[in-house]
Amino acid sequence: MQTPVPEYLAHVIDQCENNQTGKLADYIPELAHANPDQVALAMSTVDGQIYAVGDEDIEFTIQSMSKPFTYAYVLQQLGLDEVLDKVGVEPSGEAFNEISLGHDKRPKNPMINSGAITTHSLIPIKDQLESAEIIRRFMSELAGRELCFDEAVYASEIKTAYRNLSIGYMLRTVGILETDPVDIVNGYIRQCSILVTVKDLVKMGSILANGGIDATTGKRLLNRDVVRQVLSVMMSCGMYDAAGDWLTTVGIPAKSGVAGGILGVLPGQVSIAAFSPRLDEHGNSVRGIEMMERLSRDMGLHLMEGTPSAQTIVQSHYRTGKNASTSIYVLRGVLKFTEAEMLLRIFQGEAVDESTIVIDLTQISLIHDVGKRMFLEGVDRLIDDGHSVLLVDPEQRLEQARTHKDRVLHVYQNMDELLEK
Amino acid sequence: MQTPVPEYLAHVIDQCENNQTGKLADYIPELAHANPDQVALAMSTVDGQIYAVGDEDIEFTIQSMSKPFTYAYVLQQLGLDEVLDKVGVEPSGEAFNEISLGHDKRPKNPMINSGAITTHSLIPIKDQLESAEIIRRFMSELAGRELCFDEAVYASEIKTAYRNLSIGYMLRTVGILETDPVDIVNGYIRQCSILVTVKDLVKMGSILANGGIDATTGKRLLNRDVVRQVLSVMMSCGMYDAAGDWLTTVGIPAKSGVAGGILGVLPGQVSIAAFSPRLDEHGNSVRGIEMMERLSRDMGLHLMEGTPSAQTIVQSHYRTGKNASTSIYVLRGVLKFTEAEMLLRIFQGEAVDESTIVIDLTQISLIHDVGKRMFLEGVDRLIDDGHSVLLVDPEQRLEQARTHKDRVLHVYQNMDELLEK
Amino acid sequence: MQTPVPEYLAHVIDQCENNQTGKLADYIPELAHANPDQVALAMSTVDGQIYAVGDEDIEFTIQSMSKPFTYAYVLQQLGLDEVLDKVGVEPSGEAFNEISLGHDKRPKNPMINSGAITTHSLIPIKDQLESAEIIRRFMSELAGRELCFDEAVYASEIKTAYRNLSIGYMLRTVGILETDPVDIVNGYIRQCSILVTVKDLVKMGSILANGGIDATTGKRLLNRDVVRQVLSVMMSCGMYDAAGDWLTTVGIPAKSGVAGGILGVLPGQVSIAAFSPRLDEHGNSVRGIEMMERLSRDMGLHLMEGTPSAQTIVQSHYRTGKNASTSIYVLRGVLKFTEAEMLLRIFQGEAVDESTIVIDLTQISLIHDVGKRMFLEGVDRLIDDGHSVLLVDPEQRLEQARTHKDRVLHVYQNMDELLEK
Amino acid sequence: MQTPVPEYLAHVIDQCENNQTGKLADYIPELAHANPDQVALAMSTVDGQIYAVGDEDIEFTIQSMSKPFTYAYVLQQLGLDEVLDKVGVEPSGEAFNEISLGHDKRPKNPMINSGAITTHSLIPIKDQLESAEIIRRFMSELAGRELCFDEAVYASEIKTAYRNLSIGYMLRTVGILETDPVDIVNGYIRQCSILVTVKDLVKMGSILANGGIDATTGKRLLNRDVVRQVLSVMMSCGMYDAAGDWLTTVGIPAKSGVAGGILGVLPGQVSIAAFSPRLDEHGNSVRGIEMMERLSRDMGLHLMEGTPSAQTIVQSHYRTGKNASTSIYVLRGVLKFTEAEMLLRIFQGEAVDESTIVIDLTQISLIHDVGKRMFLEGVDRLIDDGHSVLLVDPEQRLEQARTHKDRVLHVYQNMDELLEK
Repeated sequence: MQTPVPEYLAHVIDQCENNQTGKLADYIPELAHANPDQVALAMSTVDGQIYAVGDEDIEFTIQSMSKPFTYAYVLQQLGLDEVLDKVGVEPSGEAFNEISLGHDKRPKNPMINSGAITTHSLIPIKDQLESAEIIRRFMSELAGRELCFDEAVYASEIKTAYRNLSIGYMLRTVGILETDPVDIVNGYIRQCSILVTVKDLVKMGSILANGGIDATTGKRLLNRDVVRQVLSVMMSCGMYDAAGDWLTTVGIPAKSGVAGGILGVLPGQVSIAAFSPRLDEHGNSVRGIEMMERLSRDMGLHLMEGTPSAQTIVQSHYRTGKNASTSIYVLRGVLKFTEAEMLLRIFQGEAVDESTIVIDLTQISLIHDVGKRMFLEGVDRLIDDGHSVLLVDPEQRLEQARTHKDRVLHVYQNMDELLEK
Repeated sequence: MQTPVPEYLAHVIDQCENNQTGKLADYIPELAHANPDQVALAMSTVDGQIYAVGDEDIEFTIQSMSKPFTYAYVLQQLGLDEVLDKVGVEPSGEAFNEISLGHDKRPKNPMINSGAITTHSLIPIKDQLESAEIIRRFMSELAGRELCFDEAVYASEIKTAYRNLSIGYMLRTVGILETDPVDIVNGYIRQCSILVTVKDLVKMGSILANGGIDATTGKRLLNRDVVRQVLSVMMSCGMYDAAGDWLTTVGIPAKSGVAGGILGVLPGQVSIAAFSPRLDEHGNSVRGIEMMERLSRDMGLHLMEGTPSAQTIVQSHYRTGKNASTSIYVLRGVLKFTEAEMLLRIFQGEAVDESTIVIDLTQISLIHDVGKRMFLEGVDRLIDDGHSVLLVDPEQRLEQARTHKDRVLHVYQNMDELLEK
Repeated sequence: MQTPVPEYLAHVIDQCENNQTGKLADYIPELAHANPDQVALAMSTVDGQIYAVGDEDIEFTIQSMSKPFTYAYVLQQLGLDEVLDKVGVEPSGEAFNEISLGHDKRPKNPMINSGAITTHSLIPIKDQLESAEIIRRFMSELAGRELCFDEAVYASEIKTAYRNLSIGYMLRTVGILETDPVDIVNGYIRQCSILVTVKDLVKMGSILANGGIDATTGKRLLNRDVVRQVLSVMMSCGMYDAAGDWLTTVGIPAKSGVAGGILGVLPGQVSIAAFSPRLDEHGNSVRGIEMMERLSRDMGLHLMEGTPSAQTIVQSHYRTGKNASTSIYVLRGVLKFTEAEMLLRIFQGEAVDESTIVIDLTQISLIHDVGKRMFLEGVDRLIDDGHSVLLVDPEQRLEQARTHKDRVLHVYQNMDELLEK
Repeated sequence: MQTPVPEYLAHVIDQCENNQTGKLADYIPELAHANPDQVALAMSTVDGQIYAVGDEDIEFTIQSMSKPFTYAYVLQQLGLDEVLDKVGVEPSGEAFNEISLGHDKRPKNPMINSGAITTHSLIPIKDQLESAEIIRRFMSELAGRELCFDEAVYASEIKTAYRNLSIGYMLRTVGILETDPVDIVNGYIRQCSILVTVKDLVKMGSILANGGIDATTGKRLLNRDVVRQVLSVMMSCGMYDAAGDWLTTVGIPAKSGVAGGILGVLPGQVSIAAFSPRLDEHGNSVRGIEMMERLSRDMGLHLMEGTPSAQTIVQSHYRTGKNASTSIYVLRGVLKFTEAEMLLRIFQGEAVDESTIVIDLTQISLIHDVGKRMFLEGVDRLIDDGHSVLLVDPEQRLEQARTHKDRVLHVYQNMDELLEK
């Protein structure tokens, strides 16, 4: 059997391919040489499965899509507070390249140029590497392959970087930049000239979708709170001057670049990247936007589409043994706060006596931190009530099997093993 | 056993109770008579379980927290387009009561006063009821009990409603309001004077959290797309002039009222309401904000805390029967796009032959629309490959049990029944 | 002989009469009934000579041209400080009817609607008259005839005064208005409905041009500092959102009204009024603007066209008498600071001795305050030096003929009388 | 006798000398070395008489007071239209160094830094001189002595010119600047480093006050329309963000510089310059402002203090000769539009007959263009009525002595000469 996902993505491309509106970026001369008809679409699951169709191997410059990743890098290196001192998190309601600051002198957010240049200036220099090279290496690690600079685009953009230089000097004036703005702007432009394909983008995005862990290696590349910050800022500030419109209609944290790329990340679910060089008046890829909207609508990929959690965390509950003195709970699904709350509510039905309670976690697919803590709190309370509590947990998800009161729990591989005893 | 949730909520109240900063709303004289030390906290799960602690039975006026519900009502009655013609969805970056409009003359969003007054003007009048009475009935239905107006607060606010009257006349000037602004502003102020408790608020919020369905009655009160729109706007515009700060630090769509209430809704998970009358300079309850922040942090209730989906939708896979010709998949967890994608990826391992494939859905806790469509597409493809596909689905979640190609599927109550055949 | 001024004004009308662009005010229904082809032009000298051509006897509502006069009235009654507490003097850079305030909550200036409504609210009520009636009487005094209200225009405007009511409630919100905004807005609209002709306007304007004195009666109607304040504000704020453009190209303090009138006042020189109902997009009379520009250009009527003052305040100087011991100065022209400075500079040429100095003021056309003080200071110094100083001043412009040191001066009617002695 | 003007100016200095508030400019390190207690005041009449007291020979950098002169230079060289294409004339309502543009991309006016940098870029380069050198030569011509650059201040400011570089690149971005912004900003900063004393400033200002003519040489250095434009812009934009306040209270077109200078120019009357290094929060000299306010108030030097023109242009009128057939008018004062209008009005009293009319201009101190044209028109009309018109004009101010209808007038040196005939 072939999975229908690539066909679906190809179908999405087909539907937008007739759209020839928009035009190539003209403010960077080199970008005007792109083939305007190119179009590509890719998707990655949180576990790292990548689907890609169209001109999936065409490299283009990452441009502004580099902003969330550089932001992630400096957050990871410096911590949230130090970065917030220099760059805010509020939507600007302005075009991405506006020459303006917030009332407190800080750039309003890291997704507009002033904020991104400031973010670039915060890269801690080490090993005598240039700042852009440090970011290239970081992005290469996220992408899982060695990325390169596009020297021609870099050289082309440097020549006419008047607007970014104006922003750089403005930031130097108010003390947000602390060194030569020309160097920093050059570094920022170099960062923007890193070459990626849509496959690279979804790979990089999948690490954000997966809470900071590279699913293919199991390695944590970004802290969970860094990822939360980056996605929050992409949500409220990523699509510039129409944050509210994007949130209501598409509902996917996203960032676009003037070379024609768009990257969207839905936490815990997927990352999506689209590419097509013709831009609308906001500098976003016309077809890219169209594809993102279609995917959100067709696949229910909207941040506010909160799937109602399982209302049946308890798959079955029965009593067995002498005088039906053993109560057996078979659980299933994901154990987060919501489910844990429900489970503990059900446990309230247990009388205060010395009966045995067996909880079978075999069919639980995932246990979240808060879910685990609440579960263990519930177990403690059952024991306090006089019960013996036995667990079936073949995958040993509770690791040390100790409650908050440090009681050691009896954990069995499966029900049969337990019943034998 | 007692569930620890109420204790946890009480603990949250305890921690904020020493905070005596802020002061009572002074712009509505009647509100200045509130007891400043009152404090209450409530939470509702999506399935309608309500926890409440503190001054949980104290009634206070809903004030601006009425805005998302009136918005929901008119969206439900008129559809999205008609409402968007009159009110935008962009964050305003301004105080809630600013006398200003967007460039296109529309109020920027329905959470600021100009947008809320406009929203109130859109209530379709029927049965000769006043607009505020229609909203009172709608909110009573959401709350599950008959809510009342606070006539004293209403009378008090009407007397000094200069700012809202200024906004009303401004809206009339540009044609956004089409009838007498005095009537509309009076209706809006009456809507704001509906009395609620924190328990009412979380009940009303739980219907948003649950995708529009009242979990206690199973009745759909709001369409799914209406809920998505309301929550999106609460997220980007609900907490006024610091939308980005609220999104990054708390990450819960929320709305506050000047009587001291705050309501937060996390789609698919919970609704939370806090109440304490002392306000900060933005007009938000000081303790309410503190409690919301603590809950978000402690319980991982942040929109960008996307729990990585189950990576093990397939609990087990084994072959049985003659020549191991029958392939049996036992699934578990929630079946959404992400899981369906993974499942179909696994199905790709099946050779193209005439073998039988059994899929056991017994332990699946929930099947999402897109998940179902993809699953049935996968089944069709397996059949196209030559396989016989048999399902075990005791809860009959696939209802008609027909694939997209309209094939009737064999559905069994349990594995035993199937094996018998 | 006939003076050519009326012919010149008629010529100016002729040149603009083909201009049919612009359209009637539509926001006040009654104004849409005006005859769009009407056109009138009038001019008054500071001594009250009025020239008027075209539809010079057509009455139209004064509208916003009432603003400087009401401002003058409250300044005269309350003094500058009390008025400045409520209304600023800065150009707004906005349309006249903008619903907005300055950072300090005050309307930015009295020429925009918010400032004019506030100004109206400051009219001290006396004799149980309505505020608009008080203003009608004041304007009638300035115009030298009894002016009337246009009840039809008033009634028409009241019906759709949404914008002004919005502004009124906004001002009430911030405490700039202290009583019912509906009453004040009604009063303001009534003030705007006073009927005038271009002749009335130039008569009223001539009192501003003449430093507050009605030249035809010799009666002071406004203090000099009130006039200076009113003209300053007309200059910087009168022509709305293009103050700088108006100042550079026309250079005449001015105010227009939506019924088609424009009034310009050049201090010390003339007042000019034009009328024609068709308006441009700013709400200014198209032909009115054209006529004002032509008059400014043709007649050198620009505030910055400072005519270099007389460089020959001393018409002749000669010595006579025994040993040429008497020095005679024959002066001419206007004696202001500039001329007095020059005169005293010339007096420096007198040696320190006991010679007689005769100063003939017969041909001096005007003596300004500062000019007089400096002149008397110079006389004192000449006497200190030992001189006898004799004056010829048939018109007795130095009144008491005492110096600062309280010396009594010898003043003669003419040179012959003096020489006799 | 000594003129009291220097004593008066010294008195003004005395009164402000105790004011030690404000602080030295800190953004240019070199300026922080100034002696904060220095204070100087100077005044020039339109005929070039200069009074100066205090630290009148101390040189300081001209800074922003160079802006009106460079504006004058490029207006003179390029004409108004070409300059208006690049820089507007509207008050900005912002600080002088704001990094922002008008809606049409042009700097709002030439008195803020963005406008001044643009103005500098318009200097036509000739003789291979640098732009700042061209301006130094032009200012030296105005000042009547060779001015120098302060190389230390220039070098100091160049090092930290971040804000001006930001503005320069912003202007380059939108195409207002057309060449390398670094060069232009350097030239602008060099222009600001020209050294002047208060005496230089009032000399330069007196040329503006005198309509563009250097009174000491009689040479026209600037066209009349250039002067009008420069003074208009100084009036509305010179004192930055409080244009209206300055216009109402001081009423003198002015410009200040951060080295502590202020220059004010009252057209047709005087120029005034003050200097003292301590600045207020707007960057204006604290004592300088105080002295300007005092001078305006004490001496009636306010643009809106229009001195009522002479109401007695006709000093005497009598009839003589046979049958009193000769009508003799003796005029006095200044003959501008206002007086000419009045004179012609008086001529209307002449019957239509063949009598002789004698007009004696001996005591007329000045004849303005418009005044002359109207006078000659009146003479033509008297002749048309049948009169013989004879003039007494010893200074031959009517030059060619021809009317508009090209009639040759009989002009006599004095009344005696005429009576002899």
